[in-house]
Amino acid sequence: MKRIAIYDTTLRDGSQGEGVNFSLEDKLLLTKKLDELGVDYIEGGYPLSNPKDHEYFVAVQQLPLKHSKVCAFGMTRRKNSPPETDTCLKALIDSQAPVICIVGKTWDMQVQQILSTSLEENLKMIEDSIAYCRSLGREVMYDAEHFFDGYKANPEYALKTLKAAEKAGASVVILCDTNGGTMPEVISERVTAVCKEIKCQVGIHCHNDCELAVANSLAAVRAGASQVQGTMNGIGERCGNVDLVSVIANLNLKYGLEVLQPGSLAKLTEASRYVYEIANLNHRNGQPFVGQSAFAHKGGMHTHAVALNPVSYEHIDPTQVGNERRVLVSELSGRSTILTKTQKYDLHNDKPLMSKILNQVQDLENDGYEFEAAEASFDLLVKKVAGLYKPWFDLIAYRVNIEHDKNNKPITEATVKIGLADKILHTVAEGDGPVNALDGALRKALLSSFPQLSELQLVDYKVRVVNNRAGTAAKVRVTIESRDQGDVWGTIGVSENIIEASWLALVDSIEYKLFKDKEAGAKTN
Amino acid sequence: MKRIAIYDTTLRDGSQGEGVNFSLEDKLLLTKKLDELGVDYIEGGYPLSNPKDHEYFVAVQQLPLKHSKVCAFGMTRRKNSPPETDTCLKALIDSQAPVICIVGKTWDMQVQQILSTSLEENLKMIEDSIAYCRSLGREVMYDAEHFFDGYKANPEYALKTLKAAEKAGASVVILCDTNGGTMPEVISERVTAVCKEIKCQVGIHCHNDCELAVANSLAAVRAGASQVQGTMNGIGERCGNVDLVSVIANLNLKYGLEVLQPGSLAKLTEASRYVYEIANLNHRNGQPFVGQSAFAHKGGMHTHAVALNPVSYEHIDPTQVGNERRVLVSELSGRSTILTKTQKYDLHNDKPLMSKILNQVQDLENDGYEFEAAEASFDLLVKKVAGLYKPWFDLIAYRVNIEHDKNNKPITEATVKIGLADKILHTVAEGDGPVNALDGALRKALLSSFPQLSELQLVDYKVRVVNNRAGTAAKVRVTIESRDQGDVWGTIGVSENIIEASWLALVDSIEYKLFKDKEAGAKTN
Repeated sequence: MKRIAIYDTTLRDGSQGEGVNFSLEDKLLLTKKLDELGVDYIEGGYPLSNPKDHEYFVAVQQLPLKHSKVCAFGMTRRKNSPPETDTCLKALIDSQAPVICIVGKTWDMQVQQILSTSLEENLKMIEDSIAYCRSLGREVMYDAEHFFDGYKANPEYALKTLKAAEKAGASVVILCDTNGGTMPEVISERVTAVCKEIKCQVGIHCHNDCELAVANSLAAVRAGASQVQGTMNGIGERCGNVDLVSVIANLNLKYGLEVLQPGSLAKLTEASRYVYEIANLNHRNGQPFVGQSAFAHKGGMHTHAVALNPVSYEHIDPTQVGNERRVLVSELSGRSTILTKTQKYDLHNDKPLMSKILNQVQDLENDGYEFEAAEASFDLLVKKVAGLYKPWFDLIAYRVNIEHDKNNKPITEATVKIGLADKILHTVAEGDGPVNALDGALRKALLSSFPQLSELQLVDYKVRVVNNRAGTAAKVRVTIESRDQGDVWGTIGVSENIIEASWLALVDSIEYKLFKDKEAGAKTN
Repeated sequence: MKRIAIYDTTLRDGSQGEGVNFSLEDKLLLTKKLDELGVDYIEGGYPLSNPKDHEYFVAVQQLPLKHSKVCAFGMTRRKNSPPETDTCLKALIDSQAPVICIVGKTWDMQVQQILSTSLEENLKMIEDSIAYCRSLGREVMYDAEHFFDGYKANPEYALKTLKAAEKAGASVVILCDTNGGTMPEVISERVTAVCKEIKCQVGIHCHNDCELAVANSLAAVRAGASQVQGTMNGIGERCGNVDLVSVIANLNLKYGLEVLQPGSLAKLTEASRYVYEIANLNHRNGQPFVGQSAFAHKGGMHTHAVALNPVSYEHIDPTQVGNERRVLVSELSGRSTILTKTQKYDLHNDKPLMSKILNQVQDLENDGYEFEAAEASFDLLVKKVAGLYKPWFDLIAYRVNIEHDKNNKPITEATVKIGLADKILHTVAEGDGPVNALDGALRKALLSSFPQLSELQLVDYKVRVVNNRAGTAAKVRVTIESRDQGDVWGTIGVSENIIEASWLALVDSIEYKLFKDKEAGAKTN
């Protein structure tokens, strides 16, 4: 089984992505996670470019990494000056990283127009820089920037730059499709040509500007490349780098090549989601292999067939990559979906009830609800339609007041009046904002009767305007993600008023928690 | 120049996507837009599956389409019964669509396990259904479901199903990678094999489960397919259908093939964004060719090189697909980015000022700000640092009150007290929600002095929790998109309090509008 090395540049090239900003702490957390996943190389940063990257290389030396090697990234020496006094090379050496990745120019046009130097001097810059870092005991890899464009313009010169790197002792030369504009068959042809001319290892570094980065990376491996550079979830500048998640899954599951460590593949979904969380980016539901929707089934016909025979609509078993099958609630899904989602209630023989649930879902969807990310709210809806719901408390009124004068922080106060058993509870709380204050007041009222609510944490809060093209007022859809020790659940509220929508989602979250604990208690008793 | 037909199934297969729900009106708007783009075929729905799809085919007959043909989708007749009495075929004929697309089974396992019928009867189902629709004067296309999996399991039988369709008069047989699990070289090999055996046109229908749908569709075209089925923006079940946007751009710009109509390509970005708006889905910033970030440059080095020579970091000219180059503000972008963004102020020789702006951006980014989607707030920041800013009014205080009792709609009231010139204005307004009420009260105070504010519309409002791993309270980031007759702009506010964050973004939007109109007035005077 041939082994392909995985080189992750999420921390460096990934951080060029729009909306991506990693703190030092983020970078260390990600390094640990990538090491757990079993990535071979972690490119930690560009030590000369900013102080945070420099600090990273100091701090990362304290991390007990099991498998991954940390790499520092930098450029070839400046033109017409020796490597020994070059500030970028000095920063690379000072980083103490065991592997150094040096990028240099391949494209004759760029050497002349951007570097404003001779083709000959560029070859020396490549050779000198690599030889210098090698002489100080580092493993050196060479990133051939714009390789495919450069090869198109002047193949002889492009090959000369690779040979200069090889001669100077580079362990791998990496062919970069920097602009992401190359087609798979061209990648294949040029990697084949390079592998004939070069004896050291060949790597591939693709960008996704034509939505072909995964295909291009796979084509390169089939043509002889043994290292793939990319980022987790494909984050990166413009349209992103190649998504290593898809590359890893395809190399292993589709081509039977060895990647990462034994058992790594089943950690892929969790690792992908962790990176989104740390990067504070929205997950991409439709992401291949690891997305929430990657094995989600909505169409009634499909849902039925999947239940009969998973291979009908699943190209792999989702558990191989740590993901799971989901059945979605929607107007298209029909009765068999609702059946699957309501199995625990044993209602499946009650056809009129199933229709009532389906109708209710459709009505709420027309109002702007989406139950796909709010399975706890859906569960409450089923209880309500089936007559299994009894409210845990009655809302009598709430009030929120936010006051701000320009010299002070805004003050937010919420009051809540509820009926619980035969008492009326009236509580007040301040908060950072209105939802926080409402949550505080409501918990004050409920906590002595339901102490388990102290475990409940609100972990995410999202707001989306639901455009209403019918011309009436726009609504907002609030989704809240909640967590206790063992569980995560989503709830939803829709209203013209963001506070009311938040309140609805908040109450659903609390009621779901109370029902869930009661049902779990009934089981264990 | 060879022509490739584009078959859009956004309205049918796309609507299977998680979170996608089209109203009848949505579907008609999308049909018009796809026709304007010059798509060859528009699959409007599955008339038997739900009443909305049936109504669509009635209503679409009134649309004056310039180029596109509308198709109705359905299945082969049921087993062991004649086509004349089949309800699905009846619905297809009744739809009056000039083109009918019939899907049938290719995979022997599915015929036996899912349809529970014989391989022979399945061939008859395909042949009868197509022949029947042909006999009533319709053009018929045949979707070979699971073609690639079926061919792998039993190539002889898979080819027989295609030959049954061809014999019955199908104009195109479309090879579907229904599970999205096939690799590009396998697609290529099997499409080549089919093109040798079949005389009618061959089409390709890919799903993106391995992130290879675009590569697979291109491979099929290179192997002889002349029709590509897919959806706008790749929306669809699981990981989506192939994104026609990328397919169209690659076929035309990279392979020189004729697609759509003359001039269509430059409409691609606008059409893509229109589909997101109608589908009420978030745009994918990193989407190839048409994403907001597809030609955005963040890294300082890149930004500098792009300015010198666009071909260095752009694989195509963004205007070819109706997109544009953007230069982003961020800690990595350095001085040359800030220079590009502040050109209109002619401050580029003032290096200390440039550093001050850069520092301010970095400080605010650490606080949770992101200027990438809030260029209007960035513009105000530059004005403030450069001493070109004078507030249009002074906030003295605001107050928002939301009251809800369970029998009534929540009531929201906001009061605003501001200083304007030498007056103090104190106004109050009700609103659907707190932002709407604050906006109302503020406009009441400002409108008599600045009547141009009546043109200002808030068009989008987004909230994101900014996770703060330092352990202090979480902040929320509010971005508001505003519009007047000629312009769209984004502003941002960050605070622990959602109301305060909204207020900051709201005030920025109003101030930006006032500055913008003043500067435009200065130019025309």
